[in-house]
Amino acid sequence: MQALCNYKLTIAYDGTRYYGWERQPDRDMTIQGKLEAVFSRLCGERIEVTGSGRTDAGVHARAQVANVRMNTELTLRDYCNRYLPEDIAVNDVRIASDRFHARYNALGKTYRYTCILPPDKPVFDRRFVTVLEETPDVDAMRTAAGYLIGTHDFKSFCGNTHMKKSTVRSLDTIRLDENGRRLQIYYHGNGFMQNMVRIMTGTLLEVGYGHIPPEEVRDILTGCDRSLAGPTAPPTGLCLMKVDY
Amino acid sequence: MQALCNYKLTIAYDGTRYYGWERQPDRDMTIQGKLEAVFSRLCGERIEVTGSGRTDAGVHARAQVANVRMNTELTLRDYCNRYLPEDIAVNDVRIASDRFHARYNALGKTYRYTCILPPDKPVFDRRFVTVLEETPDVDAMRTAAGYLIGTHDFKSFCGNTHMKKSTVRSLDTIRLDENGRRLQIYYHGNGFMQNMVRIMTGTLLEVGYGHIPPEEVRDILTGCDRSLAGPTAPPTGLCLMKVDY
Repeated sequence: MQALCNYKLTIAYDGTRYYGWERQPDRDMTIQGKLEAVFSRLCGERIEVTGSGRTDAGVHARAQVANVRMNTELTLRDYCNRYLPEDIAVNDVRIASDRFHARYNALGKTYRYTCILPPDKPVFDRRFVTVLEETPDVDAMRTAAGYLIGTHDFKSFCGNTHMKKSTVRSLDTIRLDENGRRLQIYYHGNGFMQNMVRIMTGTLLEVGYGHIPPEEVRDILTGCDRSLAGPTAPPTGLCLMKVDY
Repeated sequence: MQALCNYKLTIAYDGTRYYGWERQPDRDMTIQGKLEAVFSRLCGERIEVTGSGRTDAGVHARAQVANVRMNTELTLRDYCNRYLPEDIAVNDVRIASDRFHARYNALGKTYRYTCILPPDKPVFDRRFVTVLEETPDVDAMRTAAGYLIGTHDFKSFCGNTHMKKSTVRSLDTIRLDENGRRLQIYYHGNGFMQNMVRIMTGTLLEVGYGHIPPEEVRDILTGCDRSLAGPTAPPTGLCLMKVDY
């Protein structure tokens, strides 16, 4: 018999069919729920999986990280990939220190938001992009993004308006990459609140469309009021790319 | 009122949900059928779309070519992409000479077959690849592919065993590209019969797995008997990349 090990998992998923990462009592389709079902079946007891954080309904991940304590002799990666649905894959499994906690130990995260400029109609990656209604002014978006960099109270960019905990976060990178008819926005920071990347993206796009002047993003930040910021961009274009430890 | 024009269309599709390119009286889900429905609606009369050739059920295309004769003043590409399903896109529309015929004028075609080597589990492009059961010997596959190059009777590689027309075709390229856990096989020739690329792929994989010696591919060709060749590889990994005129 093996000892109980703390495993660090790196997980990719196509979030299209799911109500997000977090297990929910009344919904079968969550990523955490699917993983826990496979591990519980394997171990014959209730197993809990800890993610680095939640992702919203419909949001994807290339490298979500989770930890799970189990006692197993099986080749975990093959077992997982055989029993998980086709849109969830465990790409790496390694034994972590007993103290490793996917959420508490996460130091930073990279998210990517992918937009397709009209009139392109993406067919093969349509589930992983957001098609824009018009072509935005990317330089104006870059100027606006500059105001978001740093340590700020991001209350205006938090989807949970009843948030009791601190809404202060540090954002060190927003990079806008243009490649043909594809615009990708990379965000790196120490932590992101519910809908935060999508509200920042929705706000930057409003700037790009000329509906909000770039400088107004400063006032949106200091106003600490969700109604000042732009709309929440759709989840399809968003992907969790990397978690730093 | 505009004159009747002959339009050349370049079309991409995710074939997953479709029974192939060709319109079928009893099936709604075909690519040709969906295009004809949109054009017929636009013109208020029955419109026929001619493709460069058929693709099998479940096979994809990045640049299928078709022609259609219509009398319209609309911006055809935008109209199509608005009314076509999300997994079919018209990427280019141009007025062709009146004599242009997508099938008769096609000089050659490029197909690509994408395999993923185990133990990888593709999540984001799972609809467009075929996951192999084992890792094949790619050099043996290359040797076998060499025997297929040239002008031959490809009867052993034709899925339609009642084929009345000539089964002689010319194949000038089979290229096997290895990139990490991805193996892509490119085929270029003057024409391909039903299932032909998939049977060639299935046969090359049998060689790669060591079940067929590379040299036996010569005998399979000369035997002119479908039962001598390997299995028909699944449609998911296959994509029509380009049609030459």
